[in-house]
Amino acid sequence: MNPITTTQVNVKRDEMPAERLRIAVIGAGYWGPNLARNFAQSPDWDLAAVCDLDVERARAVADRVGAPFASSLDEVLDDPTIHAIAIATPARAHGEIATAALGKGKHVVVEKPLADSRGIGVEMCDAAERNGLVLMADHTYCYTPAVLKIRELIELGEIGEILYIDSVRINLGLIQPDVDVLWDLAPHDLSILDFILPDGLDMSEVCAVGSDPLNTGKACVGYLTLPLGSGGIAHVHVNWLSPTKIRRMVIAGSLRTIVWDDLNPQQRISIYDRGIDLDTQSRTEANVTPATVSYRLGSMWAPALAEQEALANMATEFASAIRGRRAARTSGGSGLRVLSVLEAAAQSLARGGMPVAVEHEVPELETVL
Amino acid sequence: MNPITTTQVNVKRDEMPAERLRIAVIGAGYWGPNLARNFAQSPDWDLAAVCDLDVERARAVADRVGAPFASSLDEVLDDPTIHAIAIATPARAHGEIATAALGKGKHVVVEKPLADSRGIGVEMCDAAERNGLVLMADHTYCYTPAVLKIRELIELGEIGEILYIDSVRINLGLIQPDVDVLWDLAPHDLSILDFILPDGLDMSEVCAVGSDPLNTGKACVGYLTLPLGSGGIAHVHVNWLSPTKIRRMVIAGSLRTIVWDDLNPQQRISIYDRGIDLDTQSRTEANVTPATVSYRLGSMWAPALAEQEALANMATEFASAIRGRRAARTSGGSGLRVLSVLEAAAQSLARGGMPVAVEHEVPELETVL
Amino acid sequence: MNPITTTQVNVKRDEMPAERLRIAVIGAGYWGPNLARNFAQSPDWDLAAVCDLDVERARAVADRVGAPFASSLDEVLDDPTIHAIAIATPARAHGEIATAALGKGKHVVVEKPLADSRGIGVEMCDAAERNGLVLMADHTYCYTPAVLKIRELIELGEIGEILYIDSVRINLGLIQPDVDVLWDLAPHDLSILDFILPDGLDMSEVCAVGSDPLNTGKACVGYLTLPLGSGGIAHVHVNWLSPTKIRRMVIAGSLRTIVWDDLNPQQRISIYDRGIDLDTQSRTEANVTPATVSYRLGSMWAPALAEQEALANMATEFASAIRGRRAARTSGGSGLRVLSVLEAAAQSLARGGMPVAVEHEVPELETVL
Amino acid sequence: MNPITTTQVNVKRDEMPAERLRIAVIGAGYWGPNLARNFAQSPDWDLAAVCDLDVERARAVADRVGAPFASSLDEVLDDPTIHAIAIATPARAHGEIATAALGKGKHVVVEKPLADSRGIGVEMCDAAERNGLVLMADHTYCYTPAVLKIRELIELGEIGEILYIDSVRINLGLIQPDVDVLWDLAPHDLSILDFILPDGLDMSEVCAVGSDPLNTGKACVGYLTLPLGSGGIAHVHVNWLSPTKIRRMVIAGSLRTIVWDDLNPQQRISIYDRGIDLDTQSRTEANVTPATVSYRLGSMWAPALAEQEALANMATEFASAIRGRRAARTSGGSGLRVLSVLEAAAQSLARGGMPVAVEHEVPELETVL
Repeated sequence: MNPITTTQVNVKRDEMPAERLRIAVIGAGYWGPNLARNFAQSPDWDLAAVCDLDVERARAVADRVGAPFASSLDEVLDDPTIHAIAIATPARAHGEIATAALGKGKHVVVEKPLADSRGIGVEMCDAAERNGLVLMADHTYCYTPAVLKIRELIELGEIGEILYIDSVRINLGLIQPDVDVLWDLAPHDLSILDFILPDGLDMSEVCAVGSDPLNTGKACVGYLTLPLGSGGIAHVHVNWLSPTKIRRMVIAGSLRTIVWDDLNPQQRISIYDRGIDLDTQSRTEANVTPATVSYRLGSMWAPALAEQEALANMATEFASAIRGRRAARTSGGSGLRVLSVLEAAAQSLARGGMPVAVEHEVPELETVL
Repeated sequence: MNPITTTQVNVKRDEMPAERLRIAVIGAGYWGPNLARNFAQSPDWDLAAVCDLDVERARAVADRVGAPFASSLDEVLDDPTIHAIAIATPARAHGEIATAALGKGKHVVVEKPLADSRGIGVEMCDAAERNGLVLMADHTYCYTPAVLKIRELIELGEIGEILYIDSVRINLGLIQPDVDVLWDLAPHDLSILDFILPDGLDMSEVCAVGSDPLNTGKACVGYLTLPLGSGGIAHVHVNWLSPTKIRRMVIAGSLRTIVWDDLNPQQRISIYDRGIDLDTQSRTEANVTPATVSYRLGSMWAPALAEQEALANMATEFASAIRGRRAARTSGGSGLRVLSVLEAAAQSLARGGMPVAVEHEVPELETVL
Repeated sequence: MNPITTTQVNVKRDEMPAERLRIAVIGAGYWGPNLARNFAQSPDWDLAAVCDLDVERARAVADRVGAPFASSLDEVLDDPTIHAIAIATPARAHGEIATAALGKGKHVVVEKPLADSRGIGVEMCDAAERNGLVLMADHTYCYTPAVLKIRELIELGEIGEILYIDSVRINLGLIQPDVDVLWDLAPHDLSILDFILPDGLDMSEVCAVGSDPLNTGKACVGYLTLPLGSGGIAHVHVNWLSPTKIRRMVIAGSLRTIVWDDLNPQQRISIYDRGIDLDTQSRTEANVTPATVSYRLGSMWAPALAEQEALANMATEFASAIRGRRAARTSGGSGLRVLSVLEAAAQSLARGGMPVAVEHEVPELETVL
Repeated sequence: MNPITTTQVNVKRDEMPAERLRIAVIGAGYWGPNLARNFAQSPDWDLAAVCDLDVERARAVADRVGAPFASSLDEVLDDPTIHAIAIATPARAHGEIATAALGKGKHVVVEKPLADSRGIGVEMCDAAERNGLVLMADHTYCYTPAVLKIRELIELGEIGEILYIDSVRINLGLIQPDVDVLWDLAPHDLSILDFILPDGLDMSEVCAVGSDPLNTGKACVGYLTLPLGSGGIAHVHVNWLSPTKIRRMVIAGSLRTIVWDDLNPQQRISIYDRGIDLDTQSRTEANVTPATVSYRLGSMWAPALAEQEALANMATEFASAIRGRRAARTSGGSGLRVLSVLEAAAQSLARGGMPVAVEHEVPELETVL
């Protein structure tokens, strides 16, 4: 028996088939093969090369998708037929490669996180702006049908004002040699928040607490708190030490509340018409009484979601941004905002949870490429 | 078809039947009827009276369990045949009633929280100590079969060193007129932590953040962080605005991890033999490498739990403490530690999440009645 | 924190308050106390007496609800102020008591099953008809908000033509001394089917298989198959030997499918807009091809249900039927149809699953009282 | 974050590395690519060719795994360096291809079901026996860690005597053009039963009921009942019309009960120490009383399972059977027993659920190759 899947597509493509763009994937480790496969299968792209310092690794990945491989980055960057590169190297190499590629006139998409520090992220965004090129963050989750639906519901006003967001992303995870659990996992949550919040990640401060109970030298359990402009709050729990796996985000609004359970493929999104309403005239500190509060206990609705590979949607959006000469939905600026919050969180963590201001000073990157 | 329940009892009673103690329940509102019913049915107790300012309410509750009612507190406190009282009034009245009762030689059990401020809690504990009487906090959850089993597993060393505790207690809840969500719900989590942690609630500081997105004048969403002595961390999420109901506590240890899901009556406790082990010789900041980490992916075990009413166990323990001339398992001191953490949390909340020291200075209450 | 419940009521009462009817509950064992409590609290009823051969048992139940007790059935039946009786004795006594009561002019409601044989059920229905009185089956599940909602959805055409019904009712259950698992549990499923199916339990035959793997002398596992008039099928699995408890009924229709999970209080009813559509012109054996089949993968909807006690609704319906001089929604005829299917099932079981015709010959009981 | 998987392997391989065997995969449609990939990656096998009538399809599959393709079956069968073939064509072609291959001295593994009729299955088994070759059924589920664990637990006596087996395999499934739901899905359940039951599929009769409520010309809902030798019963529910997906098998034993939920990757197998015990002396029809029954309400245990691809285990077993000159664990005889039950079920279905005898007369195939 074959499974049945829906075929509806949320991410639109230009109606007229354009000439294909040519891209090279840099880095053939964990994530590179997924990028290679999706660009190879995309109607928008030709995969021009897979490149890795380890040539055999590059060749193996390239062979599997019927693409050429390249043994050096320069070879790729000097090829005038290549329009763009996708970077899937370790984060510490993102800045140098992206800046070089942008300098050679290539559009760039970068695996999350955009860089391993905010300063380097700023440089990358500057380089893209100077050269009039697209710099995109591969915030893959933002291109899943679930997150696209959440963004759509918020944009349409179905949720109302956002009251709180609570995200739990826990598992028995690999202890990373170079980063703590916040840098490893929280970029997922932060990039999603930047994508779905009407004003993006614009909070002025952040609190982070964490724990390293195994003495690994870095936090393996982390909690992140972000005040929302609306008066609400966002909270993120990331954890490498959980025996059970949970990936669950609640987006509570004044009208409805979304529960996204990413591990329930049969019902990823549930929308509850349940909540609390206050008689707004009496909204003062002194007189919230039972008489001024009412409780809504309505029905729940779980919309059907398309079965789509998020990376295919991401590849489409990258091509569309280049052709449209516009910023990508998950732009370099988005990647930079995630880094800004992460750096503030790292400082808060080091100070035992003290609130730390988030640095937002950057060029107006969203309005340009 | 009748359900089948186990009959095993975890809380032991003295083997020889002792003469029954006589108790009066003060307060016939939400919780009082439960106390009245359990003391009325207990083999350790005679329910001497149900007392409420609203005499009709007292009479109705008393009638349902076949007990007398009383129209004034003085009447109860002046009755020399009454050994003890159980207080189920609003928290702001706990201090005055308890102190008066202790002054008249009555043992006292008090609904959670022990009082509405730490200062009054200290006075209550002092009064109990001075008079050589039992002051007990009715931390009901601690007498559920689930929490008794968790405490037992920790005491037996089955869990190992505690790495982190993560508690979530969320629901669409009544917005209380007088207290915020931390004071309303967190006493449950804190009293359980005090009960199961080897050193109780002895943390030196606490961070709390919260949010009042509906402008009710008080936090409706709260997050509480408590550093554990072992280097681990405890975290509590309480929430009145959640469309779904979750009551789930994870107690992660170096050997095993307990997941307590209180809303799954068929499997409340799950014990996972899953976790991460470090080669301890190499536990330094510099050299945690994949070679020094190993992952345990063992089985899961869900012990059978007795079906018992927690309040019946509580009533047994109160009688046993009085007869044994010892502090109750959930003593006044325990109730006071909960208040100490709540007051620090309230200050942290007011300061945007700044860590705030927990006041611990109290007489050595645990060793006396 | 107090739970919040909805207050919407599905079972309507007459708008004008009528004089209360007087009822006696016969039998104070397992189910009698529930009947006594609900009639005592009902605005439609006065509880005139609780009666049991064991006078002390009758007195205890009566005391708890503030009602008189009676020591003999005759005393009750001879009391001209009593309008009705509710029978909660063992099934083998239903027939004699009901017939006597009907003969004395009392309306009668009977705990399920209506009787311990179809023949006696026919006699009871005859007696009710002859005397122009209401004979009602206490098919309690039919008065739950969930089943009332299912019936409403079917009546409104929301489900379409019924394709199949699959019911699972399994648990580690008490092995009954006198009846097998089909007689113990299947009356629940059959009475619900009679209530929700547009034509009730009108199937012409039934297959039943079962097993007694512990050699208890009666089937402890049973499967029941009922062809539906529409061409569909109903199937019931009842089981005393399951380590897990499941109460789940699927009602699949040509338009939508209902899944009722009675053990999920937060989402008892889920309605799926998922299914298979055939190009009807090509519906012949020869040419169902992929081209003529399409798959609907729409959303899911979980309506809010009121929190109501089913027995309270049942008491209201009993009073309303008496006052309206009409058959109750779960009439004696309904109880008789359940018995008819059970007797055919018992024969099929004895013959290893052979289809057995269901006896339907009865007076036209539905149109009269 | 990368997932962590266990590496323990349940299916043992010979310790000394043997020379690789050469295999060709026949059929490059739905299942063929999976076979090709697993044989290509197996240390026991060289993938000699992928063969399909549609040469382009064969080439595409072969390219993806770096293997040659073949344009004709004869080419494969005439190649003396090829030891074995794996057949993944439509079921109606299995017989002819397998018999030809066996005639040419090739060992054969066949996708389920072994053939499209019992008669052809007998011929295939005969051909294998005559030629002294391995004929294996690719009953893939039997090589999953879950089913291997179930078989092991039963063999070790952990479950006790089997009381009942209840299997549910339902989904919104593709309506097959040529077979009904029993032939499409029940081979999974039957092959698993044959694998785990101590005596395999040796039942003497079977009942099957089904329904075609959409008038597709074939049953889309089916229920299958199989009496077990022990006095117990096996029951299978297969369904193409369910809006929800369930793959759940309960194996209830006198000592413990296994629940296998194949859609819960974090806890596929749960073992309950819950059940009912009878005082065996009193096991007669007349005197099962509450006094002679006791209820066990013990704990639950969920063993860790390896993450393994079942087809890789299957490939290992096929090589091991060939080298060991023994029947495979899922032999041609096993495939034939599945066909025998299916044919009897089809007859029962056509007769409205009448019990139909299962034909078992076959050569003693299990003891030879």
